[in-house]
Amino acid sequence: MDSRFHQQIDFLNQIDQLKHILRKTRVLGGSRHENSAEHSWHLAVMAVILSEYSSEPIDLNKVIRMLLIHDLVEIDAGDTFFFHSDARADAVAKEQAAAKRIFGLLPADQASVFLALWEEFESSGSPEARFAKAIDQYAPMLQNAANEGGTWKEFQVDYHTVLDKKKTVREATPRLWEHTLELLDESHRNGHIEKFEL
Amino acid sequence: MDSRFHQQIDFLNQIDQLKHILRKTRVLGGSRHENSAEHSWHLAVMAVILSEYSSEPIDLNKVIRMLLIHDLVEIDAGDTFFFHSDARADAVAKEQAAAKRIFGLLPADQASVFLALWEEFESSGSPEARFAKAIDQYAPMLQNAANEGGTWKEFQVDYHTVLDKKKTVREATPRLWEHTLELLDESHRNGHIEKFEL
Repeated sequence: MDSRFHQQIDFLNQIDQLKHILRKTRVLGGSRHENSAEHSWHLAVMAVILSEYSSEPIDLNKVIRMLLIHDLVEIDAGDTFFFHSDARADAVAKEQAAAKRIFGLLPADQASVFLALWEEFESSGSPEARFAKAIDQYAPMLQNAANEGGTWKEFQVDYHTVLDKKKTVREATPRLWEHTLELLDESHRNGHIEKFEL
Repeated sequence: MDSRFHQQIDFLNQIDQLKHILRKTRVLGGSRHENSAEHSWHLAVMAVILSEYSSEPIDLNKVIRMLLIHDLVEIDAGDTFFFHSDARADAVAKEQAAAKRIFGLLPADQASVFLALWEEFESSGSPEARFAKAIDQYAPMLQNAANEGGTWKEFQVDYHTVLDKKKTVREATPRLWEHTLELLDESHRNGHIEKFEL
């Protein structure tokens, strides 16, 4: 009886389902929606490449682990569109239950490490969590800018709403925030995002 | 002119294409082929969860980075089916050219780090590379066993061919090798893989 090993394999088989969780964002070119597994891969690579732009010193290895597991709760709770604030509030309790169930599939020592890592990410409770969140918020802006507005256009998210909701990027990584402004300005010039005078 | 940053973003945008590289292996349940981006994500999480089974001491952070980037060459060279030995030999030169082009998109310091990491993985030139390769070889066996034989059945790969080709698993991680044998025996009992008497 090697229940530790079988718990680990059960977890690894169950998280295969993340490949079926579709985000609102589309892959570059727009041919299909992106799933949360490939999204998590892309964010982890982004963190490695862009870590020099963190405004605070970070343990990059911790950031990578956070990004690899940050969306696992969606297996139970589904993906919630970033700009749907009401849905986001409702999602919190569901995601906490999901984290307990999914990480709880693991042996107790690993379950508690991953649950703590996910909670740290969710609460932006460390420089690593803030940088990981900034990468998670920045990535779809690269995609939307490349996809003629992407979800900004599809869901009528305007320029100032994006700026307002993406402040984590500004604080955690000024260089990516500067690029965010460039992407938004370019998208606005190209008619891919609306901008209302304030 | 911030060419360093724009090289990094160009790389990150171009590797989005890994989401379109389809493997022969299917996601659990078999509804569609797995792509190499979500596969890379799954392997990175597997490495974190299963690192205690490495036969040699490893730097897990290096293993994770290797797994995140090990398939990027497929963007140019395509995925080669593991059991097609002739195709694997042809693929080597293509993959080397791909590695130079794709990692070469990055600033020189990052390009050389990633190229060296990929070459270390390819040549199994360290404990980290051997463990990463073992995880890469083990994962599709989990999938095939769950998918009623999967690519073993689809491409008539028999029991002893699998054992012969997957020796890296045996050396790098005896516990996963033991499980490999269990998976193969169970698949054989269920009629999902052929076994010829030797």
